[in-house]
Amino acid sequence: MSIRRKKITVIGSGSTGATTALMMAQKEFGDVVLVDIPDKEDPTKGKALDMKEASPVQGFDANIIGTADYKDTAGSDLVIITAGIARKPGMSRDDLVNTNAKIMKSVTQDIVAHSPETTIIVLTNPVDAMTYTVFKESGLPKERVIGQSGILDTARFRTFIAEELNLSVKDISGFVLGGHGDDMVPLIRYSHAGGIPLDKLISQDRLDAIVERTRKGGGEIVGLLGNSSAYYAPAASLTVMAEAILKDQRRVLPSIAYLEGEYGYRDIYLGVPTVIGGNGLEDIIELDLTDDETAALDRSAETVKNVLDVLRS
Amino acid sequence: MSIRRKKITVIGSGSTGATTALMMAQKEFGDVVLVDIPDKEDPTKGKALDMKEASPVQGFDANIIGTADYKDTAGSDLVIITAGIARKPGMSRDDLVNTNAKIMKSVTQDIVAHSPETTIIVLTNPVDAMTYTVFKESGLPKERVIGQSGILDTARFRTFIAEELNLSVKDISGFVLGGHGDDMVPLIRYSHAGGIPLDKLISQDRLDAIVERTRKGGGEIVGLLGNSSAYYAPAASLTVMAEAILKDQRRVLPSIAYLEGEYGYRDIYLGVPTVIGGNGLEDIIELDLTDDETAALDRSAETVKNVLDVLRS
Amino acid sequence: MSIRRKKITVIGSGSTGATTALMMAQKEFGDVVLVDIPDKEDPTKGKALDMKEASPVQGFDANIIGTADYKDTAGSDLVIITAGIARKPGMSRDDLVNTNAKIMKSVTQDIVAHSPETTIIVLTNPVDAMTYTVFKESGLPKERVIGQSGILDTARFRTFIAEELNLSVKDISGFVLGGHGDDMVPLIRYSHAGGIPLDKLISQDRLDAIVERTRKGGGEIVGLLGNSSAYYAPAASLTVMAEAILKDQRRVLPSIAYLEGEYGYRDIYLGVPTVIGGNGLEDIIELDLTDDETAALDRSAETVKNVLDVLRS
Amino acid sequence: MSIRRKKITVIGSGSTGATTALMMAQKEFGDVVLVDIPDKEDPTKGKALDMKEASPVQGFDANIIGTADYKDTAGSDLVIITAGIARKPGMSRDDLVNTNAKIMKSVTQDIVAHSPETTIIVLTNPVDAMTYTVFKESGLPKERVIGQSGILDTARFRTFIAEELNLSVKDISGFVLGGHGDDMVPLIRYSHAGGIPLDKLISQDRLDAIVERTRKGGGEIVGLLGNSSAYYAPAASLTVMAEAILKDQRRVLPSIAYLEGEYGYRDIYLGVPTVIGGNGLEDIIELDLTDDETAALDRSAETVKNVLDVLRS
Repeated sequence: MSIRRKKITVIGSGSTGATTALMMAQKEFGDVVLVDIPDKEDPTKGKALDMKEASPVQGFDANIIGTADYKDTAGSDLVIITAGIARKPGMSRDDLVNTNAKIMKSVTQDIVAHSPETTIIVLTNPVDAMTYTVFKESGLPKERVIGQSGILDTARFRTFIAEELNLSVKDISGFVLGGHGDDMVPLIRYSHAGGIPLDKLISQDRLDAIVERTRKGGGEIVGLLGNSSAYYAPAASLTVMAEAILKDQRRVLPSIAYLEGEYGYRDIYLGVPTVIGGNGLEDIIELDLTDDETAALDRSAETVKNVLDVLRS
Repeated sequence: MSIRRKKITVIGSGSTGATTALMMAQKEFGDVVLVDIPDKEDPTKGKALDMKEASPVQGFDANIIGTADYKDTAGSDLVIITAGIARKPGMSRDDLVNTNAKIMKSVTQDIVAHSPETTIIVLTNPVDAMTYTVFKESGLPKERVIGQSGILDTARFRTFIAEELNLSVKDISGFVLGGHGDDMVPLIRYSHAGGIPLDKLISQDRLDAIVERTRKGGGEIVGLLGNSSAYYAPAASLTVMAEAILKDQRRVLPSIAYLEGEYGYRDIYLGVPTVIGGNGLEDIIELDLTDDETAALDRSAETVKNVLDVLRS
Repeated sequence: MSIRRKKITVIGSGSTGATTALMMAQKEFGDVVLVDIPDKEDPTKGKALDMKEASPVQGFDANIIGTADYKDTAGSDLVIITAGIARKPGMSRDDLVNTNAKIMKSVTQDIVAHSPETTIIVLTNPVDAMTYTVFKESGLPKERVIGQSGILDTARFRTFIAEELNLSVKDISGFVLGGHGDDMVPLIRYSHAGGIPLDKLISQDRLDAIVERTRKGGGEIVGLLGNSSAYYAPAASLTVMAEAILKDQRRVLPSIAYLEGEYGYRDIYLGVPTVIGGNGLEDIIELDLTDDETAALDRSAETVKNVLDVLRS
Repeated sequence: MSIRRKKITVIGSGSTGATTALMMAQKEFGDVVLVDIPDKEDPTKGKALDMKEASPVQGFDANIIGTADYKDTAGSDLVIITAGIARKPGMSRDDLVNTNAKIMKSVTQDIVAHSPETTIIVLTNPVDAMTYTVFKESGLPKERVIGQSGILDTARFRTFIAEELNLSVKDISGFVLGGHGDDMVPLIRYSHAGGIPLDKLISQDRLDAIVERTRKGGGEIVGLLGNSSAYYAPAASLTVMAEAILKDQRRVLPSIAYLEGEYGYRDIYLGVPTVIGGNGLEDIIELDLTDDETAALDRSAETVKNVLDVLRS
């Protein structure tokens, strides 16, 4: 029985997609296919080749190819979608939503046509609604379509807390529910430094400020970069999720998962604590929430529903 | 006696500089300072912050800051220069050389003002002449100023050979002398697959084609990317050189080194096999060359001298 | 300014000492000196050579030497003490304590004679009293002498919890105070799976059983191995502590630290939450304890005092 | 389609088997089953548990179990055989060979009964004959049964050369043919430092001495350890071979392979340069040998045949 390398496809060869491809190749998860539209075929090939040329020096062994042809993605064990447009000045949210939903539908058809049993991770914003779109379009079971936002949100939170306390990021944990950005529901009581709840180590004022900075964390980077959104931390977040699936690790990670009654919601994708492993979404962990937390999660769900309504109209 | 982290400064926050900063942080070489001009201060800060936000997820522990103020670089153990402009259509080679030499002088003054005992690695093109410029401007001993091009050239060569033979890049080695790109002098007899000289495994025709592709390897990427040159493999190459110095590894690596009689040259920077360790350039390995190789190295040296003449005029 | 590799000495070339040396070399913390008594000089040299011969294959770069001569340890940045005898059948606890204390004094004199400004980590049992002995004998400041037990205890706890919940060990955290083994004071409320307090995920009965198994964790391994105590997990625990110091990480780790009023104790070494970094012990984190926890910590401290009384008599 | 972790079985829980299990777990190749005879079930379980307890601290995620029941090995992707006795004083070579052949037959039957499509790597000495024995007993195709000795021999050679030249082991390569130890056929012309043939860097006298030390490398460690043979470097060598298979890397590695005419031999296992990948032995690389090399390889083959004759009688 031969052993074949795993195959991972990344849709979208922008900075996030390309960085994700590199990080996965560096960790030798398998061979990587970086895909973009025909108009971007050349730069996609160029990035893939440049990464591959880094491999002898960094000592990793992975084929990385760039392509505009979905045939090259056939038999992927995992597909990561980073494609989509960012909101531009003057663009309405509905326009953004409709454009990206169209992109999601198109790439999903192409993905499942060539990898009918794959697992898909979605990063494209607004991520809850886009994951829902991919799920519906793919016909895949809910275990096989998940979205990413919580790992990135907690990564930012952990960075700010580590800085505040002058401690290693390795020992800081964070916990969020709900949507990305403004709709994020941080659970400080489940966030720690070396296991110690943060409210024992940081004043409420400072914690509030750090939560607020986390909520605006994506915007902070856009504000600095000017013509681009963040890509290093998003790529690292996708890589962790990919690793949990490809190595069947049953990790406890915040994911955007399809709810069928959990936390009181149905037929919606929402950020919740999950167990991620070789089956994709292996479990949703249900927690007792305080009234405040429930209210915040409701607001977050409301936002997602509004976007879904846009899509349905 | 306290232990302090090493400090590494990267000048130039473009894709190469930023990727180098990330790769060094991922390997926990120390804390990283990413520097660019005041006009680019915000994107530089943005990239640094985005990388730092990747650290809790990737599990590395390093401070990474972006800045336009050289005060933040004070006491650097190592400085890597990636700053400079790329040749634009219609720009003469002399204009490129003069512009980048001016940049080298300026950043070198700023570097040594704050880190008078540092080691400097130069990547800016034309790299032989730019390394010479930094050396002269810095007042540092020749051991402390080296240039990078051979690791990148051999990385490309190894990638193409691995593809040709369908073997792991881990087992392919390559060897070059002389300049970057067209002036590269490949020593096939010192290039191997699993220790076996390549000419026993690949026809001369194919080897010639691969050498030619390697020579044009930078251009191949530029041609694909369109508006950018390669950055992943260059960053990986810089990272290997940095590691050899920061971990005092005495590695055998091709470097652009100041020659004082070696290979028959004086007062010139040229690509030669070197030993790189905690003292920077620890040794130059002199090899017997064939007449053809000597002639090729002479042509390479001639090119460097011509550029230096431009600078002196 | 040349960069020199860090130097780490491991006292005791038994399975724990040797495995610790290997793990640190694999991570390229620096060069490693493995020391044992003249009677064991040859096996010590043999283990060091065997490890070094593993380095080209595993791709790490570190000198590892075995020796019985403390001159070879001169200028160590860090010293780890694993030397000492294990309790044998029929041996009284007081005999064990006195024998190991004698060993501690002897090796400490040899260590500080050649590395007067080093930091020392102690593993030898009974570890609280042995760390105290090394501290007093060394004349080093309290920041520079710490003991290890809590990382190992929590490692076992985390392993059992991960098994119980069928989740990745990466997402389980544990928290202990006080002594090693029976005197361990677990703080379940600061122990989590994916940030969620364990008592929300596991019944009290099962938690109690796992705490009890953790307390007896060292004995469980001895019972299985027959003629040896555990060495893989102890070595891994020492390696984490060494990394925090050598890379100046300011990690939050349980350590055996010298108390001067913290938690109400003075002139005693006891397991407490600490911040470990380039200065060694950088901080002791004081927590509010419940009455039960305080009582348990008092019992733990009492045990340590009793051992110290044996040593003083 | 669910992703399941790979499963690797290590037969023999002595120091080599246990260290191999740990190294593979640390690299997250998959879950590891450590097997020994019922008499050693407890220590086998103890070592496995101790390793697993190291995992939360070292940050790797792998199940490691110890067992005496081959049912636990069912469905292994790879099996590594380290079981067997070492030659004791007064024991004839034929006794050693016959005893270990009996062990090989027994474990091979147990392996293939539960993993009929696995790949097997053999380390037990005399390794050429023991690999042959396993091959014949298993009924597996020749691609799926290989032996290890050349990676270890070259690892020792590389270590000694790196020491001689004061260069990083990362840049030293070595090349051997034929048997282990005294029958090793070193090919210095295919051994390099930074790509440069060693005879250009080291005198013939010193090279001869280093080759001789390499031949006796196993004995040197036994002489130092006293009651044990080497285990760190052997385990590292097995781990590299396992990685090439489990990650389908097509690496160029010296292996003990079944020859069917290559190098002029038939129906024999001999150390030759091979390509190792997801199919096990993917290729044998045939080189032109000098007369001296051919003669040395003949002597090596003669030794193997003599041992096989012992087995057949």
